[in-house]
Amino acid sequence: MKIGFIGIGAMGAGIVRNLIKAGHDVTVWDRFREPVDELATLGASIASSLAEAAQHGVVLSMLAHDEAIQGLLLDTGWLDQVKKPLLHVNLSTISVRFARKLAELHAEAGVDYVGAPVFGRPDAAHAGTLNLVVGGAAVFVVRLQPVFEAISKKVWHVGERPYQANLVKIAGNMMIASAIEAMAEATALGTAHDIDRNTMLDVYLEALFPCGVYRGYGEFIRRRQYEPVGFKLPLGLKDVRLALEAGESARVPLPLAGVVRDSLLQAMANGYEDKDWSSLAEMSYSRAGIASDR
Amino acid sequence: MKIGFIGIGAMGAGIVRNLIKAGHDVTVWDRFREPVDELATLGASIASSLAEAAQHGVVLSMLAHDEAIQGLLLDTGWLDQVKKPLLHVNLSTISVRFARKLAELHAEAGVDYVGAPVFGRPDAAHAGTLNLVVGGAAVFVVRLQPVFEAISKKVWHVGERPYQANLVKIAGNMMIASAIEAMAEATALGTAHDIDRNTMLDVYLEALFPCGVYRGYGEFIRRRQYEPVGFKLPLGLKDVRLALEAGESARVPLPLAGVVRDSLLQAMANGYEDKDWSSLAEMSYSRAGIASDR
Amino acid sequence: MKIGFIGIGAMGAGIVRNLIKAGHDVTVWDRFREPVDELATLGASIASSLAEAAQHGVVLSMLAHDEAIQGLLLDTGWLDQVKKPLLHVNLSTISVRFARKLAELHAEAGVDYVGAPVFGRPDAAHAGTLNLVVGGAAVFVVRLQPVFEAISKKVWHVGERPYQANLVKIAGNMMIASAIEAMAEATALGTAHDIDRNTMLDVYLEALFPCGVYRGYGEFIRRRQYEPVGFKLPLGLKDVRLALEAGESARVPLPLAGVVRDSLLQAMANGYEDKDWSSLAEMSYSRAGIASDR
Amino acid sequence: MKIGFIGIGAMGAGIVRNLIKAGHDVTVWDRFREPVDELATLGASIASSLAEAAQHGVVLSMLAHDEAIQGLLLDTGWLDQVKKPLLHVNLSTISVRFARKLAELHAEAGVDYVGAPVFGRPDAAHAGTLNLVVGGAAVFVVRLQPVFEAISKKVWHVGERPYQANLVKIAGNMMIASAIEAMAEATALGTAHDIDRNTMLDVYLEALFPCGVYRGYGEFIRRRQYEPVGFKLPLGLKDVRLALEAGESARVPLPLAGVVRDSLLQAMANGYEDKDWSSLAEMSYSRAGIASDR
Repeated sequence: MKIGFIGIGAMGAGIVRNLIKAGHDVTVWDRFREPVDELATLGASIASSLAEAAQHGVVLSMLAHDEAIQGLLLDTGWLDQVKKPLLHVNLSTISVRFARKLAELHAEAGVDYVGAPVFGRPDAAHAGTLNLVVGGAAVFVVRLQPVFEAISKKVWHVGERPYQANLVKIAGNMMIASAIEAMAEATALGTAHDIDRNTMLDVYLEALFPCGVYRGYGEFIRRRQYEPVGFKLPLGLKDVRLALEAGESARVPLPLAGVVRDSLLQAMANGYEDKDWSSLAEMSYSRAGIASDR
Repeated sequence: MKIGFIGIGAMGAGIVRNLIKAGHDVTVWDRFREPVDELATLGASIASSLAEAAQHGVVLSMLAHDEAIQGLLLDTGWLDQVKKPLLHVNLSTISVRFARKLAELHAEAGVDYVGAPVFGRPDAAHAGTLNLVVGGAAVFVVRLQPVFEAISKKVWHVGERPYQANLVKIAGNMMIASAIEAMAEATALGTAHDIDRNTMLDVYLEALFPCGVYRGYGEFIRRRQYEPVGFKLPLGLKDVRLALEAGESARVPLPLAGVVRDSLLQAMANGYEDKDWSSLAEMSYSRAGIASDR
Repeated sequence: MKIGFIGIGAMGAGIVRNLIKAGHDVTVWDRFREPVDELATLGASIASSLAEAAQHGVVLSMLAHDEAIQGLLLDTGWLDQVKKPLLHVNLSTISVRFARKLAELHAEAGVDYVGAPVFGRPDAAHAGTLNLVVGGAAVFVVRLQPVFEAISKKVWHVGERPYQANLVKIAGNMMIASAIEAMAEATALGTAHDIDRNTMLDVYLEALFPCGVYRGYGEFIRRRQYEPVGFKLPLGLKDVRLALEAGESARVPLPLAGVVRDSLLQAMANGYEDKDWSSLAEMSYSRAGIASDR
Repeated sequence: MKIGFIGIGAMGAGIVRNLIKAGHDVTVWDRFREPVDELATLGASIASSLAEAAQHGVVLSMLAHDEAIQGLLLDTGWLDQVKKPLLHVNLSTISVRFARKLAELHAEAGVDYVGAPVFGRPDAAHAGTLNLVVGGAAVFVVRLQPVFEAISKKVWHVGERPYQANLVKIAGNMMIASAIEAMAEATALGTAHDIDRNTMLDVYLEALFPCGVYRGYGEFIRRRQYEPVGFKLPLGLKDVRLALEAGESARVPLPLAGVVRDSLLQAMANGYEDKDWSSLAEMSYSRAGIASDR
């Protein structure tokens, strides 16, 4: 299939590789030259403009946040001037509010639209093992199947409306943050009671929570080292804030998300903004007066 | 091995069966006649007194809480009058404070003591697939190996001091409660945004948290039916309170445990005291004004 | 002094009356005809346009929120086209973020700008007993003294930058919300222990907190009747959200504000959106299972 | 009136002075010699035993906490052996659970009992300006009027049952802690936004909360100096814990108390256990990364 792709960061690069590997004909666009050149060596075409990236009927985009999309795809007039028919698949994690607005604006512009945020980090994007959460009309999901198959291990069609996928993604990240906070509080409690943190984590990660999220972030906490970064702390804070914001718009109190938000903010205020978001564990230790060498 | 066993509830009964099955010679005691009679048909001897249950050098006990142990084993003078040498293995989930006190009292009485609370419900006790968290001197753990092997799938020796096992158990239950609360908040948020709860849970339980705790309690939340009970809500509240109490004694703030405590209390105040503790999810729904038929 | 005034709601009307009473020459503008006509009978001139309201060198505005100001004063081009020199005194409670932006935009447009939100409800506006919190250059505060004296009982100059006044106001409302929540939790606790709520409040409002905020909102809680409304619940939620947002931008965790936010959201979801914000007390009662007739 | 008095700490000493000043004939007992000797110079008789202090029909006690009362008045057999008729007025701040138990034990022993905790610190005890919160039968309150008048500025009879007074006291302290936390969060927010803390407090303490609790603790926060101590931090933590415990026994969630508890625990873990409890404000500053010299 001929596909355009906008936004070649670590995630986008991995995804495009898998599209090419599956035989798709991909035209890529990015603000920067280097990442697109690299994909060109694998067979991608380079679009000289955003419009060119969208000329083949299907375009995927993977941009950092609401503001990036606003700036690139709306404020530039791209959406209104793009060649139709076009199906736009937005892989970015964005707010529910903006997702609703994007759906409206695409409808007004006569552009078909699907929200398809992913669970998985760059390594999963590269390996083609993302979980793809899709919101949009079933007809589009069927049509996109060869694309989705190339880049993910599983497609979750969670509703007819694009924003629904974004909400499932955001709420999922809120759950991950809660899992990290739970490990933090439990091990802070244990450490303060002279129990070896490694031993505790061994028990919890095998006997209670033998799943990737706990195991992955548990390793950071085990070592109390939060690099190399899996998911940067400010991004985690952003997603928890998006969950709280979505809660506010639908009148859903989220006390646990509130707790996590405060730990993440404390981390931001105390020098962890370049660390993995599991470093919020250090806030539990700091509040409990646990020395950094325990 | 000749073993005494005190306290034949649903958990104790399952454990004793596995001891017998493994060839141990078990003498059982309980306040009630029926459960011990049943075990007698499988080959257990019935002790006519607490002292008799402890005459063979090793005695296991599985009682409901601090107060039950205080009443049966301390206030009666049992501990001071028991035949020595004796090794007492306490399988109950008790407070850290009481666990420390029990260790002291056993030492004073010249009775060896091991704390060995379990992760797993009656079905796991019956199947012999408990996770056994053990605190005590290594020499006892070695000696008890044939006993532990008969009743558990894995033994976690978490420290030399008995209370450490109790803390690991309590903190683990706090983590489970947090996982339930996280599923509750996420699905309340989704439901309020017109997303199907089943679909959300499908994503989370397979893509993010494919492990027993989430899957088991997720099923209750999926159906919004909290029976048959896996772990009764007031017991869950007790364990979260024990975590907060342990936090207080070691000066460890536990905001997430505080949130869960309040949800559990709300559930107690609103008619859920006979339900599974995953019914705390209903509190998230109620606070968000989500009707009971959604 | 010749003064323009934009926005004649319940607050604005009371303030303009006091300006007229003090001998100022006021030109008023509002979307609606009725409130300005009423002030005209007291001697106010009616502006036929927003520009006309700002032609005398000083203009005060009292609008509902960020969006209203954005719509009326920015999107219309008013700020850029207004006759200069002009000093704009913004009495509205707005977000810190928007307050910063307004200060920049005024500077770019060459319009002097002061932020001056008020503590006090319409009755205080009418009585001229508002507390005025002012952020801006001292020279403006001096110049505005005759205006401020006419409408307030006290002027608090909290800093040179306009947003600082908005932050002091927002944080103050957060404190008021916390005071309400504290009365709610204390009386819920007492009621559940069969103590008369009136008696409790008598003790607290005289022995501990003999000040207007507690007394005023305590009366609502005493009667468990939340009308007539003093400050509408959604406005209270807005201000608490603005506090949390200001906390987020400066990396300040605000756990107490988070608790209040969740109670206010619960109230929104359960039918209290037209009530006084002290009705958040009912959430404490509801969570504790306290019947509505106690 | 002839009165016994047990427990001559800073509070008790002030109270006994006022009893003597009002013409009462007071027999005092304390573990330590010095404080009773001092009162003897003012005219008090010294009891050589606890029993002797209770021989005149009315005895007041002011002890530190549940454990002190348990040790002195229960475990010693005092209550069972005391000369009757006796009316015991317990001025201590104790838990609701223990207050209920004490009422039962007094009834069983045939000793009349009134709970009468106070609001006010040693200076108010000395000045006779305590607020006395009384739980007990009206007939006792009438009889004790000359005693109560001598030591307080106001008597609040909150219910027929002694524990009710203790609950009103505990919940009141929880409200005070919340007020401190609110000042802490508001000023942390302001400080992080470059607003002078003194200015903020000026506004809040005059325009919003012109009452003693805010003003007194506001002064500590203003200076960020928490000595000399008004109410020691661990005592504050104790009372908040008693509120949470009372909430748990009556199934009342208390999220705000939970937040304050965690701040107090953090303070305990980070070196503030000898400071005034308003030093919990420092936790807000620390979490927000605000330097100690701002």
